[in-house]
Amino acid sequence: MAGSPPIALLTDFGSRDAYPGVMKGVILGIAPGAALVDLTHEIAPQDVTGGAWVLHTAWRFFPLGTIFLCVVDPGVGSARRPVALAAGGRLFVGPDNGLFSYVLAAAPTGEAVALDDPRFHLPHPSATFHGRDIFAPCAAHLARGIPLGELGSAVAATSLVTFALPRPVWQGDVLHGHVLHVDRFGNLITDVAGALAAALLATPAARLAIAGTDISTRAHTFADGPEGEPFLLADSSGHLAIAVRNGSAAALLGAGRGDEVVARGVPHERADEPVR
Amino acid sequence: MAGSPPIALLTDFGSRDAYPGVMKGVILGIAPGAALVDLTHEIAPQDVTGGAWVLHTAWRFFPLGTIFLCVVDPGVGSARRPVALAAGGRLFVGPDNGLFSYVLAAAPTGEAVALDDPRFHLPHPSATFHGRDIFAPCAAHLARGIPLGELGSAVAATSLVTFALPRPVWQGDVLHGHVLHVDRFGNLITDVAGALAAALLATPAARLAIAGTDISTRAHTFADGPEGEPFLLADSSGHLAIAVRNGSAAALLGAGRGDEVVARGVPHERADEPVR
Amino acid sequence: MAGSPPIALLTDFGSRDAYPGVMKGVILGIAPGAALVDLTHEIAPQDVTGGAWVLHTAWRFFPLGTIFLCVVDPGVGSARRPVALAAGGRLFVGPDNGLFSYVLAAAPTGEAVALDDPRFHLPHPSATFHGRDIFAPCAAHLARGIPLGELGSAVAATSLVTFALPRPVWQGDVLHGHVLHVDRFGNLITDVAGALAAALLATPAARLAIAGTDISTRAHTFADGPEGEPFLLADSSGHLAIAVRNGSAAALLGAGRGDEVVARGVPHERADEPVR
Repeated sequence: MAGSPPIALLTDFGSRDAYPGVMKGVILGIAPGAALVDLTHEIAPQDVTGGAWVLHTAWRFFPLGTIFLCVVDPGVGSARRPVALAAGGRLFVGPDNGLFSYVLAAAPTGEAVALDDPRFHLPHPSATFHGRDIFAPCAAHLARGIPLGELGSAVAATSLVTFALPRPVWQGDVLHGHVLHVDRFGNLITDVAGALAAALLATPAARLAIAGTDISTRAHTFADGPEGEPFLLADSSGHLAIAVRNGSAAALLGAGRGDEVVARGVPHERADEPVR
Repeated sequence: MAGSPPIALLTDFGSRDAYPGVMKGVILGIAPGAALVDLTHEIAPQDVTGGAWVLHTAWRFFPLGTIFLCVVDPGVGSARRPVALAAGGRLFVGPDNGLFSYVLAAAPTGEAVALDDPRFHLPHPSATFHGRDIFAPCAAHLARGIPLGELGSAVAATSLVTFALPRPVWQGDVLHGHVLHVDRFGNLITDVAGALAAALLATPAARLAIAGTDISTRAHTFADGPEGEPFLLADSSGHLAIAVRNGSAAALLGAGRGDEVVARGVPHERADEPVR
Repeated sequence: MAGSPPIALLTDFGSRDAYPGVMKGVILGIAPGAALVDLTHEIAPQDVTGGAWVLHTAWRFFPLGTIFLCVVDPGVGSARRPVALAAGGRLFVGPDNGLFSYVLAAAPTGEAVALDDPRFHLPHPSATFHGRDIFAPCAAHLARGIPLGELGSAVAATSLVTFALPRPVWQGDVLHGHVLHVDRFGNLITDVAGALAAALLATPAARLAIAGTDISTRAHTFADGPEGEPFLLADSSGHLAIAVRNGSAAALLGAGRGDEVVARGVPHERADEPVR
């Protein structure tokens, strides 16, 4: 399969069971030599929102044509549709449950299909493992060059399930946001992003409160921050993050995903910035 | 190595050390471009039975010719034989300690060899890491196309070590089985499988007791189950499983691997069904 | 990229976030079909010393020409240099912070460069993720065949940052060493290595004390050791290790990395042995 696009996998299957490996076996049976890349299999069980976020941070860095095989699928076997879609020059395969919410918001979307043509599934699909029986074989057929439109019935991209993307809101001059993600280092990544994050960081009087702690120190890099106290910086995806040098902001602050952050002193004219 | 078969790795080496990476380095030195797939490296340390189970759930989904490199090897360096065998159209390389018990029970077995020809090992093999020094190089030579029979002395497949596969037993009209595996989602997968599992699920009066809880609710999918209570379903390998919707049956029931399950009301004529 | 060298990745990024996947996406965009191998992503956060050790145990087992992409980088974005170097017939890419200390001590070193040519970086590199923006693209360009010397300004290999390698010291006839690493099995791997480890193991009167326990039992393999008590053996990298059969020496002894080991009765003429 020299020249075939990579298949990047994102699941909540963990690494103790063979579920991701089985999907790869199925793919290699259909598309021998396919290039397989793990994005992560450590999305928390059934955490569609968390999976959507991690996909959001990653897909742009893969080559055009990459196939993202995404399985966080608490509704497996139920009425939720198995789908594939083209967006942002890549292809996405998985359940229609919101997992592609960020992708659909951020990228020009093309064709989408319901994966309802059994010729591209394993025979006798189970009701409990569509990753193996439907999604992996469909991704493999895409890698072999089968056009997206042949995998099933066309559906409108606008009909795909999406959740409302988290974004900060103004209450008067005060900006209320939330922690979107805690990464492995304990960095708290917030939904204050883009130009709004840049404005907050560039305005000396602006400060952020989280979990009862007021933070005004900024740093350009992790190493520039002070020892033993939290500081603000722009993370590698352009989101405002709270970090601790050689330590965990999450542990120091006792904070986690979903916690509120409250910013004061941010120039208000930025309120209309899109948040991505 | 376009066209060479994939090598799928299963070990208890974990992901903190470089042990799996080192095996891959050795393979790539012998078979450049070999396609490497991780089944799992998170088998519990020295858990041969657990490794055999995970291999069982996976190998059929890989293409014919796939080479399974399996290292759960508490007896490394002792009298236990390093072996390779052909079974079910695939090749298996690892210690002769029961790791291939399910494979040998389920699949037509062909040739087997003891890996006793040092031409196919690393020079000066250690006594403590045959994964690196014997199994990985032998798997790589197989991927290069060396015939199985050249890797060492022929042994009878019937001489290979196997453990008795767990299977439920009848006591009168009551069926006694066990939990074989707890997966990442907390699903409890039992040794009630195949036609016996189907009969239990299809018989409205049949029910299952585990850890003091009586379960009679069934579901076809995880999403079909009730909220907050355990239910029965057929898992993706055809085994009877106990699940909780968007939760962990293991945590809810305080149950785990090895725990007894007791089924009542299952049609008894199924008692002679093979359990796989 | 048939025939292109493998790229082996070692980071402290963990497996929950997409950081390693993103680096792979960047690589595949520059060097389609590159063979990617994970050494580990589970180095403890910011643990440069631990990363250097795991790299030390692994690199020699990879083919000549392998590119090691190593990112344990608490100083990302600060004055520490991003570098690439040739050593021992392989190439190493990462931060100049001591991560390559063992490699530089053990292997003949050739060319080294500071990665200061932005043509080989992603556009607009962030200050917080050089793994994605500098190291991964440079490794990919090496895999494509760009010569090391083109990636940036030449620097003297002797100018690269190294830490003093841990090695045991004699106090009179008593040898004082330390635990370097605890592996997944709970084996305690010490800095007593090579000929010194061999001498200790071969001298019946020699014994080792750790955490208040005196150990004189030896074994050639894990399976040869006694049940339930710690014993000494040579691990697969030639280091003296403390193990427990089918158990964890770390848990049994309450010992861990950095703990002192004290050897008595070791022939003293070995004191001048190099320790690697």
